[in-house]
Amino acid sequence: MVCAGTVMMAVVEIIARKRAGEKLRRADVQEFVQGAVSGDWAVEQLAAMLMAIAVVGLDPEETAWLVAAMAASGQRIGPGRFDRPAVDKHSTGGVGDKASLVIAPLAAACGLDVPMISGRGLGHTGGTLDKLESVPGFRVGLSVDEMVESVRTAGCAICAAGAEMAPADAVLYALRDATATVDSVPLICGSILSKKLAEGISGLVLDVKCGAGAVFSEYNDAKALGQALVDSAACSGLPTVALVTDMDSPLGMTVGHAIEVAEAIDCLGGNGPADLRELSLQMVARMLVAGGISGNLEDATVRAVSSLDAGAGLERFERMVIAQGGDARVVAEPGRLGGTVRTRAVEADRSGWLSRLDAMTVGRAVARLGGSRGRVDGRIDLSAGIRIQVPVGEEVNVGDCVMELQASNQDVLEAAADHARSAIAITDEPGVPRPLVLDTIEPQSSTESKS
Amino acid sequence: MVCAGTVMMAVVEIIARKRAGEKLRRADVQEFVQGAVSGDWAVEQLAAMLMAIAVVGLDPEETAWLVAAMAASGQRIGPGRFDRPAVDKHSTGGVGDKASLVIAPLAAACGLDVPMISGRGLGHTGGTLDKLESVPGFRVGLSVDEMVESVRTAGCAICAAGAEMAPADAVLYALRDATATVDSVPLICGSILSKKLAEGISGLVLDVKCGAGAVFSEYNDAKALGQALVDSAACSGLPTVALVTDMDSPLGMTVGHAIEVAEAIDCLGGNGPADLRELSLQMVARMLVAGGISGNLEDATVRAVSSLDAGAGLERFERMVIAQGGDARVVAEPGRLGGTVRTRAVEADRSGWLSRLDAMTVGRAVARLGGSRGRVDGRIDLSAGIRIQVPVGEEVNVGDCVMELQASNQDVLEAAADHARSAIAITDEPGVPRPLVLDTIEPQSSTESKS
Repeated sequence: MVCAGTVMMAVVEIIARKRAGEKLRRADVQEFVQGAVSGDWAVEQLAAMLMAIAVVGLDPEETAWLVAAMAASGQRIGPGRFDRPAVDKHSTGGVGDKASLVIAPLAAACGLDVPMISGRGLGHTGGTLDKLESVPGFRVGLSVDEMVESVRTAGCAICAAGAEMAPADAVLYALRDATATVDSVPLICGSILSKKLAEGISGLVLDVKCGAGAVFSEYNDAKALGQALVDSAACSGLPTVALVTDMDSPLGMTVGHAIEVAEAIDCLGGNGPADLRELSLQMVARMLVAGGISGNLEDATVRAVSSLDAGAGLERFERMVIAQGGDARVVAEPGRLGGTVRTRAVEADRSGWLSRLDAMTVGRAVARLGGSRGRVDGRIDLSAGIRIQVPVGEEVNVGDCVMELQASNQDVLEAAADHARSAIAITDEPGVPRPLVLDTIEPQSSTESKS
Repeated sequence: MVCAGTVMMAVVEIIARKRAGEKLRRADVQEFVQGAVSGDWAVEQLAAMLMAIAVVGLDPEETAWLVAAMAASGQRIGPGRFDRPAVDKHSTGGVGDKASLVIAPLAAACGLDVPMISGRGLGHTGGTLDKLESVPGFRVGLSVDEMVESVRTAGCAICAAGAEMAPADAVLYALRDATATVDSVPLICGSILSKKLAEGISGLVLDVKCGAGAVFSEYNDAKALGQALVDSAACSGLPTVALVTDMDSPLGMTVGHAIEVAEAIDCLGGNGPADLRELSLQMVARMLVAGGISGNLEDATVRAVSSLDAGAGLERFERMVIAQGGDARVVAEPGRLGGTVRTRAVEADRSGWLSRLDAMTVGRAVARLGGSRGRVDGRIDLSAGIRIQVPVGEEVNVGDCVMELQASNQDVLEAAADHARSAIAITDEPGVPRPLVLDTIEPQSSTESKS
């Protein structure tokens, strides 16, 4: 409504084209993204376009144009800024998913540079940046130069997208959250890949979560998202593979912020839960192949395992904490991650086999404990969390503690316990365990992107 | 983005439901319309919902809920406010469509009360209110009480929807214009019928235009709009019939503002072009049947023709002009409608038969002459216009003047002439004339609305 007549006409015509199901031209997509950043498109026009895209869709070429335009909306790190092959990973988000905290330093220990732009938590999923902020002093708000410097020092950095990187995403993401267009596949692709493209990396490994705690609970939906991400990344010139992994129950034995960082440190020390270790090693191995460090997956896996067990990943984690201003004493003294907490046990109300801990419900229980912000600018209690005491698939007896809830505020424990209890499913017979990695997705055809 | 958490969640869930193709509940539709008026829904959320409706659609019941909620968003004239049966007409908009200026007073002369809320022009179509403002002193901005008073005095009133009537439409219309959702059938239904429902009328006759100068150029689209309007009006308890009429070439021999008012006065005096007279009589006859003044269409037509030829419609027009503060001397002295104008002839560049004058192109040429606002709040030159000199279907010789352009500004004539020339189609053989009324649409089934 703020536009002059002719600009306004052009905007309306672009929206009308997508509404009518037509393929957009590259210039239309660029106009949309530039209009989001410049303010030439009014918020109602951006919202209408987002909804038209969410309902009608974008094909892989249009999606790649969206990714490129969003990446070009801000500063991009040049490919020559890193000394070693730069490869990143990204997860579509899950409950208890602290794998980035293991993967980035471990990949760095194995010879890659990992300039990881990560996000905040919202709703039932925690954010890697929020988790890192439980390390006293840790700064997630780095400039591009500071990020490159941290990568030079530690081999990796995990930080927020500054205002100068892919600024279109910040504008569009806030609108998507308000307009029921968060789970649109082409918009998810635009958001994730634009920031990754701006990182100046030469390869990407995606962890597409599937199950109760993921964006998509159905396997086919998650697989379609993975394929769209891999194909549009290929169109954008960024070689990418995706693993579709289980997110029906939480990853690892902790959900929260400080307790997840402690668990990641444990894993980097060669201990920690089996699923977190397994996922981290598989992701790092893929990254090593993508970066040309290893010629095949077997060699890459051997390299990742030996680095992990030698403590090289933990040493890189420590260097990253120091490079980003954090207190590295947390590595030896995890007690420094959080303050005093109140706890409450949630017990099994019958005997049997713990067949499932519904990830969405556990995530929401942590939110009730204070471990989530209602909105992007809300506060969170970094010491709030849930420690799972019985791995999914194991036998339990009535009265056994299945989960221990913790929070700095006593008042929230009771309501959260009622909520957490509803996540527990106990069966008479042991169930069939769900595999951790459900599928691997590679580009459908690399001929298009090469033509 | 301004909402508190839980309200925001509810809003997003309603949008998500329509995006996913689900049927909305009555309460959802009410929440949307109330949110538009109260500001509880942010503009981006309204825009996203409009786009979701435009792409996914609303069924007749949802559309009727939309109409009812929009009508209920403001003041409604009670059914007891008028002394005589109150029936209105509405046109979906065309080029040279001054029929309301004939129909309202003629229907009043035949025994109906006509409280007509009308609109401004935008783009290539002129607005009835703008046309009336070429009558010196004429006030289109009436309060509800002033409108009722004008109807008591003259039998009819033509005025703008005040802020108190269907305010949701003003909010949503401005957003539709900016978001490429103007031509969505359920949204058109909501906009048109909510204002008509607020008028307190007991019957409605619609003129759904079809052709180059209409919202829908294809017959099937226009018919579908007519059917949706008639069906959702029936669901809303407002008996309605629709005529689908030709708008491929302009209606009558004038396009503009002051010159269209002069032509309407001519028609009310028993003269004027045949198509305008024919359309006006058919519409008035339908209104007389709808209002119970006549038992059948034949009687109604006889009554309308004799009132027109007796000058009773012109007399009502004069009373309406006076009631709304206008200078009634324009009836006898049409020269008082506009100032001095510059003119320019557009000639036939070959001999043959004038098979078509593309209505959209003629409308745009008038816009170039200054006879259209680029935006709702823009200024227009009320004396700008085009006088068609050769009726469509007649023979022309090369060099004959086909159209005379007029404007108060000499500078715009040349460019507008080039534009107007491209509207002319001349063929070697006489074409088959298009019928004026293409179809009549009545409610598909009245059982639903009565159940």
